[in-house]
Amino acid sequence: MRDESQIIEGRNAVLEALRAGQSIDKLFVLDGCQDGPVNSIKREAKKRQVPVTFVARERLDQLSETGKHQGVLAYGAAYAYAQVEDMLNLAKERGEEPFLFLLDNIEDPYNLGAIIRTANLAGAHGVIIPKRRAAGLTAVVARTSAGALNYTPVARVTNLGAMIEELKKQGIWFVCADMEGETMYDLNLKGPIGLVIGSEGEGVGRLVREKCDYAAAIPMKGDIDSLNASVAAGVLAYEIVRQRTQV
Amino acid sequence: MRDESQIIEGRNAVLEALRAGQSIDKLFVLDGCQDGPVNSIKREAKKRQVPVTFVARERLDQLSETGKHQGVLAYGAAYAYAQVEDMLNLAKERGEEPFLFLLDNIEDPYNLGAIIRTANLAGAHGVIIPKRRAAGLTAVVARTSAGALNYTPVARVTNLGAMIEELKKQGIWFVCADMEGETMYDLNLKGPIGLVIGSEGEGVGRLVREKCDYAAAIPMKGDIDSLNASVAAGVLAYEIVRQRTQV
Repeated sequence: MRDESQIIEGRNAVLEALRAGQSIDKLFVLDGCQDGPVNSIKREAKKRQVPVTFVARERLDQLSETGKHQGVLAYGAAYAYAQVEDMLNLAKERGEEPFLFLLDNIEDPYNLGAIIRTANLAGAHGVIIPKRRAAGLTAVVARTSAGALNYTPVARVTNLGAMIEELKKQGIWFVCADMEGETMYDLNLKGPIGLVIGSEGEGVGRLVREKCDYAAAIPMKGDIDSLNASVAAGVLAYEIVRQRTQV
Repeated sequence: MRDESQIIEGRNAVLEALRAGQSIDKLFVLDGCQDGPVNSIKREAKKRQVPVTFVARERLDQLSETGKHQGVLAYGAAYAYAQVEDMLNLAKERGEEPFLFLLDNIEDPYNLGAIIRTANLAGAHGVIIPKRRAAGLTAVVARTSAGALNYTPVARVTNLGAMIEELKKQGIWFVCADMEGETMYDLNLKGPIGLVIGSEGEGVGRLVREKCDYAAAIPMKGDIDSLNASVAAGVLAYEIVRQRTQV
């Protein structure tokens, strides 16, 4: 998806950005390219857990703004990513039980922005997204978040399922949005909680869903399949808010 | 806003579309144009309550796809509009108390589409939008509604406030989204109800707000101003669903 994230082109520029620890959303490398500088970039990317996508020259030419990509091109994040620990600390600071959003494969930047906005207003402590198959913190996301990106920390993790396992050890429960789940009103959604939202087409992936403690369904009375992902996130988040604040 | 709605250009084509009763979202006429055929178009538009916008030649040239607008250009709706009566009949058929959405100045077609989608799944009987200052039923709205436009009737009215007055006589209560209102959990949102949602920037207009029986606020814990309009509509709609279905 084209948007206004910062494009970094050329071997030196990309290598420097990686070494400086700049947040990189996506890294494209010319398929089959094996020379020294490109191998250094691949090594550095691996070290920093930046996923690499190998593409044909035509694709790089198309993505390039300067025409001088030298076989490598990266999308820099418009905003810096936070750590999951920051979110837990934020909850502690506020004297609240952790309330996190986890997004599985939300690829639409408008939905991502709207969900970060909702997370902020619902009082969540952060949003966790996967590194692969997900929109990053681009300028479109920042704008759609209506400023929420300045307040609500967003972290990227390599494996969402592993992160859930880790957070479970810290006493957090996980509920995923699932049309086949139990009606949300019938679940107890109080306490330290992680709300897992999937993409509109596929929902939450099986591996992630299996790690969740509950599956929550929004009651659907209509003729079509599903709510917009950001609307579904809002409805579920506010059911959590209601249960947390109402006696 | 440019989208894929059907563009009708030229004096005859526009006049025929009006006479045939085709749903027209917007009608642009060259400013200062007073000749016979154009006056016929203006008369016909008035009769059918299609709002006319007078614009400069440059604007028409820009909107035109054929370059042959002859001073008039219309946007046809991608879908036909329903009547408010259809919605009340639908409620009656289903043996349910009416549940309507009213949208005050939602100009973003993506939000309009997502709200129609939510209305469908929340079991609402229809969506009422104003003729002016609002997105119409364009192809973008149809697509964003994910098919809901095929099931959930959408009506356009000249005056939203007058429509509220009329529906009140039929026993429907109106609640508008308003950050200064009472927390939604504390309101009784059961019974025949109309949910009024405003634009993100301005909220529900004063004249419309004054006609409402309640003002409902979504609790906001965050740092930014407001939820995305379609998320806010979803959260409020599902609070209505909860109160209607839970004992």
